[in-house]
Amino acid sequence: MVQVLDKERVQARRMEILAAASAVFRERGFHAAGMREIAQRMGVAVGKLYYYFAGKEALLAFCQEDCLGRLLQVVEEAEKASDDPARQLAYIVRGHVRCLNSEVPGSLAHLEVESLAAADRARILRLRRRYERALQKVIERGVSTGCLRCGDPALATRSLLGAMNWTVKWWQPEGRMNLDDLADGLCEHALHGLAVSRRKGGT
Amino acid sequence: MVQVLDKERVQARRMEILAAASAVFRERGFHAAGMREIAQRMGVAVGKLYYYFAGKEALLAFCQEDCLGRLLQVVEEAEKASDDPARQLAYIVRGHVRCLNSEVPGSLAHLEVESLAAADRARILRLRRRYERALQKVIERGVSTGCLRCGDPALATRSLLGAMNWTVKWWQPEGRMNLDDLADGLCEHALHGLAVSRRKGGT
Repeated sequence: MVQVLDKERVQARRMEILAAASAVFRERGFHAAGMREIAQRMGVAVGKLYYYFAGKEALLAFCQEDCLGRLLQVVEEAEKASDDPARQLAYIVRGHVRCLNSEVPGSLAHLEVESLAAADRARILRLRRRYERALQKVIERGVSTGCLRCGDPALATRSLLGAMNWTVKWWQPEGRMNLDDLADGLCEHALHGLAVSRRKGGT
Repeated sequence: MVQVLDKERVQARRMEILAAASAVFRERGFHAAGMREIAQRMGVAVGKLYYYFAGKEALLAFCQEDCLGRLLQVVEEAEKASDDPARQLAYIVRGHVRCLNSEVPGSLAHLEVESLAAADRARILRLRRRYERALQKVIERGVSTGCLRCGDPALATRSLLGAMNWTVKWWQPEGRMNLDDLADGLCEHALHGLAVSRRKGGT
């Protein structure tokens, strides 16, 4: 029991560090910021951080793994919430944008795939591919049931991932647009595009 | 005259270095690669590179400035090619994707805004904002003339920039999809979205 509590406390502390790291990375960029700035933001000695993470790379791996775990959960929830792939897609887009931009982790570090340590890279890329495949499957199901349409589901998936992931580069929590409006706006754009006229050969 | 030729030769050499750098950054990521790897790729001594660029940061600034200059030119061309904002937008999307992914520069380094040296940052961010505003203006003109439609042109612009910029993270020149198909697919997605049903309240 004591051990369980300890585990929970460590996990909670790691999430606090991640939230601080996320804010620091957002302000200064992942490469310019170090463990020292994260510790400063939390008002603790930098040595305390090393009890929870061996270094910035370990923190990055934890961040991405946690984020991808939550994204995979969003896909599961979407599939439980509705049988309609268009609705599932909308659910996932909103979940993805919130996940990456909420105060808790995600954020800029989600994009830093090249900076992963070799030991973590394969495991995390596997998770990333699993999530991206799941998203693509929703689009493919939508095309096959006739509620979505696109010429190349793999390309559409990447285009959507780009629009969603890019939000961490420009969206500011203190800006004019709140997180729900951001998520809804991206969802609207992904589903309906910008054109007024119907697509070539469409109905 | 001799001076002009010299300038042209220096510029041509810089573009060659940029092409090599672009390939190296794509393979290894901007932060993991150094001037040494770029020189190796070109089969020259690393010292030769320093005649053209003071270091990786100078190369990065040159790369972004060159890329943004070409993107701004794409906008001008789009406006000359057609009066229809929807066609202008399609022209820009295709130009942007080609610009970022063609063999000559652009590529991954276009995204490394945080890594710019302080001395270059303001100048390049100004160019970047100029380009992003020009893109947004095309969307706004389209909305006002009735050929495009979106609730928030600033959000739509960022969403589109995300989808386009993200291509440098996943598109591979040697993959199954050529650059024209990539550009056309992104354009189709940006204009028409994924939904089959009309948008809420739309006609």
